[in-house]
Amino acid sequence: MHVYRSHTCGQLKASDAGIQARLSGWVHRKRDHGNLLFVDLRDHYGLTQCVIDISSPVFATLEKARPESVITVTGKVVKRSAETVNPRLATGEIELQVAEIEIQSIADVLPIQVAGDQEYPEDMRLRYRFLDLRREEVHANMMLRSRVIAYLRQAMIGQGFTEFQTPILTASSPEGARDYLVPSRIHPGKFYALPQAPQQFKQLLMVAGFDKYFQIAPCFRDEAGRADRSPGEFYQLDFEMSYVTQDDVFAAIEPVLEGVFKEFGKGRAVTPAPFPRITYADAMLKYGSDKPDLRNPIIIADVTEPFRGSGFGLFAKLVDKGSVVRAIPAPGAAGQPRSWFDKLNEWARENGAGGLGYIQFAADGPKGPIAKNLEPARVEAIKAAANLKDGDAVFFACDKELPAAKFAGLVRTKIGNELDLLEKDVFKFCWTVDFPMYEINEETGLVEFSHNPFSMPQGGMDALLNQDPLTINAYQYDIVCNGVELSSGAIRNHRPDIMYKAFEIAGYSAAHVEEHFGGMLNAFKFGAPPHGGSAPGVDRIVMLLADQPNIREIILFPMNQQAQDLLMQAPAEITMERLRELHIKVDLPKPKKEVKEG
Amino acid sequence: MHVYRSHTCGQLKASDAGIQARLSGWVHRKRDHGNLLFVDLRDHYGLTQCVIDISSPVFATLEKARPESVITVTGKVVKRSAETVNPRLATGEIELQVAEIEIQSIADVLPIQVAGDQEYPEDMRLRYRFLDLRREEVHANMMLRSRVIAYLRQAMIGQGFTEFQTPILTASSPEGARDYLVPSRIHPGKFYALPQAPQQFKQLLMVAGFDKYFQIAPCFRDEAGRADRSPGEFYQLDFEMSYVTQDDVFAAIEPVLEGVFKEFGKGRAVTPAPFPRITYADAMLKYGSDKPDLRNPIIIADVTEPFRGSGFGLFAKLVDKGSVVRAIPAPGAAGQPRSWFDKLNEWARENGAGGLGYIQFAADGPKGPIAKNLEPARVEAIKAAANLKDGDAVFFACDKELPAAKFAGLVRTKIGNELDLLEKDVFKFCWTVDFPMYEINEETGLVEFSHNPFSMPQGGMDALLNQDPLTINAYQYDIVCNGVELSSGAIRNHRPDIMYKAFEIAGYSAAHVEEHFGGMLNAFKFGAPPHGGSAPGVDRIVMLLADQPNIREIILFPMNQQAQDLLMQAPAEITMERLRELHIKVDLPKPKKEVKEG
Repeated sequence: MHVYRSHTCGQLKASDAGIQARLSGWVHRKRDHGNLLFVDLRDHYGLTQCVIDISSPVFATLEKARPESVITVTGKVVKRSAETVNPRLATGEIELQVAEIEIQSIADVLPIQVAGDQEYPEDMRLRYRFLDLRREEVHANMMLRSRVIAYLRQAMIGQGFTEFQTPILTASSPEGARDYLVPSRIHPGKFYALPQAPQQFKQLLMVAGFDKYFQIAPCFRDEAGRADRSPGEFYQLDFEMSYVTQDDVFAAIEPVLEGVFKEFGKGRAVTPAPFPRITYADAMLKYGSDKPDLRNPIIIADVTEPFRGSGFGLFAKLVDKGSVVRAIPAPGAAGQPRSWFDKLNEWARENGAGGLGYIQFAADGPKGPIAKNLEPARVEAIKAAANLKDGDAVFFACDKELPAAKFAGLVRTKIGNELDLLEKDVFKFCWTVDFPMYEINEETGLVEFSHNPFSMPQGGMDALLNQDPLTINAYQYDIVCNGVELSSGAIRNHRPDIMYKAFEIAGYSAAHVEEHFGGMLNAFKFGAPPHGGSAPGVDRIVMLLADQPNIREIILFPMNQQAQDLLMQAPAEITMERLRELHIKVDLPKPKKEVKEG
Repeated sequence: MHVYRSHTCGQLKASDAGIQARLSGWVHRKRDHGNLLFVDLRDHYGLTQCVIDISSPVFATLEKARPESVITVTGKVVKRSAETVNPRLATGEIELQVAEIEIQSIADVLPIQVAGDQEYPEDMRLRYRFLDLRREEVHANMMLRSRVIAYLRQAMIGQGFTEFQTPILTASSPEGARDYLVPSRIHPGKFYALPQAPQQFKQLLMVAGFDKYFQIAPCFRDEAGRADRSPGEFYQLDFEMSYVTQDDVFAAIEPVLEGVFKEFGKGRAVTPAPFPRITYADAMLKYGSDKPDLRNPIIIADVTEPFRGSGFGLFAKLVDKGSVVRAIPAPGAAGQPRSWFDKLNEWARENGAGGLGYIQFAADGPKGPIAKNLEPARVEAIKAAANLKDGDAVFFACDKELPAAKFAGLVRTKIGNELDLLEKDVFKFCWTVDFPMYEINEETGLVEFSHNPFSMPQGGMDALLNQDPLTINAYQYDIVCNGVELSSGAIRNHRPDIMYKAFEIAGYSAAHVEEHFGGMLNAFKFGAPPHGGSAPGVDRIVMLLADQPNIREIILFPMNQQAQDLLMQAPAEITMERLRELHIKVDLPKPKKEVKEG
């Protein structure tokens, strides 16, 4: 018999009754029934109940094994009596009668318990992560993550993509967030950077003639952690394709996303491919966000015209000055008590709005402060525009276009949650498309890039030459699931001439472009294919699937919010010798002087 | 029709003749036949011959498209005449008659050519890597690498392993090579390190209860580059298993290695699993190396005794002082001319030996300087010990045991190559096992760890307590292919009590162990399973399969030997502002003063 195990702790069944078996694992729980001692032995695969009689010569050995000690037990597999069968356990029909025991590793008194559902502070969990990871839910989340990633890889390969590893020690990237820097020992005073994303490399791969690239890519940003973002490193399903249109990119990735959410979504419904495409303009108008949560059935409407020159002077004046009014329906809310509307008004004030005007479409006619001041025809026009019926209420956001849209989006989410309108047990996907290429900087009045300067403008050079920049859209898109942006992406601008022109419109000289983006530009001068891609966040996909709002629950060894690894004690001080080798000195911030009163 | 392509450049066949097709790709080669212009259009998938007649309105457009420009061509697929069919090309039965052409990207004059087999200096190739990667062989090597890695992943999953990502920003590891360090912005004066290998994390995963871990793991060492090692980063097939013996580890990985070499070995034979196990002692004796190249049939023998007190005074004296003599057969070499033996003698001197003594077993009896001075019975004893026959020669290495073994190994390799004895077209695997746990430091006379202090000593605590340390072997092993060490590995010491004792024997206090290895030790105190693993080098596997001695040929964007990324210009200087943020100053080495003569 194998020295450690003949079976795993998840394997023995009723049909194994009568055989000799050997199991190894952790002492999960012990129950002392006087003459009998029960031990639930746990390994990666499951739990098996082991039992020993007080008359056994090894009873004492097992009795004193503390929880989480590692032991090997050997004995006969026996069927449990009908009344002690545990149907929730894969091995619940049998138990192991322990005849021999070997202690492989003694556990000290535990700082956190593995069995049970006790909550522990984050710092404790991270410091003893090797114990925390033994807990059932955390363990299951990590296995889910691994399976999701393995599935994504196979699905991408199935779609004709090839995985490549791009460098991790590379150059600082010219745009975006803060890089992590790595001092060079061999080249004094110079630094490598860890990639924020393999963006340049994947584009170079297309220029190098590889057609369909993907990578489960580690990315690094020296930014503060958030619940949904790990400080330090995170993973993207990074991909890029040559000779493709936007629709080709969508068609390549949609089956992968639909597939992974179906496979691991535990029966939750998934938007079937092709996913809805919503223009940026529509998304901002109807959902008040470029990341619409389509589980929420509320659709915002523009009701600027009914308020223009109306008896509701507050809005009428703002509209005259260029504001817009957005109507956010609250289905079935006409009958809510005054206190409900007051509470929402309070919430709006806390969120920086002046208040939250509303109309109740009661059975006996429109009600509320606004309805009193607004001409009935206008009230009817609003009712029609916002697709309301008797019994509904409607809220209003009045402001300049962008803040009005954003606030209307907040209200939409709030009302959706308040009225519990969100569709349950579903993953609702959509693409946001047609992002504007440029926008006006309100302060300077100058034209600026709106999102990504490296996306291909729709209409190409012709549009840049002949169109009002503010009307040009980019081949840029976001993939959104349940209101969570999984990724942005784009058809890239692969043409140096178009790139120079695009930057010129945003006020940058050719020299600036060459200085900052010379690497890519240079590569594009030797034959670059049209190409595009995206990079859905792996961590976010797993968080959605695991229904975990905190990234810590789906990463093996996360850093804490202060970017510390409490288990390995990183970051840490290093020796003077290492510093000298790296040609750097530590330059600590000066301690603040205490001011003494004289 | 799709805007860029209806087919790839590797797709069109005779059966497609007559259809309209659209292709996009790079202008690989142009051949001007007067009235006809032929263009080989290339993409990731293949080459298609395109042809255009001088009468076409777009002839001039195609004619002026420089090599490596990206174009889209549309036209009719036609069968080639029998005499122009190219059987070496997948699309060799057809050509495309170009009717429309669109230039997607104009190529400048190329710094290195893509078509053809010209050699270019490494720096040129790396600076223009996006062009170099378009070349047929480099492109194929990168695809091989990707397929090998995808295969390894699937094979490991098939063996029941789960892939996990371990942190890349972590703590400096206490042992081994130099880490790359990353200054922390948030924690002034503190540094992260990039992992040399996920060794501690994979062991923690076992302690955390995951049973069979693997990862295609990026590893980082701040060491000088070599032909077979990339400066900076490299990849390992890192794996670890719980509740296993050494044989279980071998049984898990052997099918994966045999499988990948069979799958991608282009018909070369592969040692069938189980691979031979060779003890360290045997490997050093018979092959003069702990990385035996089993393609070489030469087996070294110990012939110390025949020389002890013999007439060949030089060796006899050395043997009296504790040296050993090793015999390295040279099959069939008895008839080689004197110059051949002289040349080898010269080679031996260049490699630090005093010379290279030998005996020729000619048909008419033993010959050469040693045979003259050695008693015939002793010569016969050598012949028997080294398994020689008439017509063979034999060389000798006489020195203290370790240097004699190592030099004999060098001679074995040299003779094997000189006589062209190595088996061809084969991947010969073996395990080297039973590495000694300790050795004597010749200078200090003290007992030291021989290899890895964290391996489990064979015999466990009992051996440490009761055995001469120099006789204790470790559960440590190397996996070797064709004389290349793919990886070392071990059954780990998971018991704090045994670890304290093992370090005590090598002269380290418990306090030292706790200070330097406290992290792992602490984890082992809360229930650690017996575990072990290994980490075959992915780059080395691909190099063997691609038959490429230089790592640059199998990595997409390698750094040069000076650890510079010539394409991305890394490492590079950074701004003062970034340095301040990171709380460091550059501390450049002082320029050497010129000494002026006064």
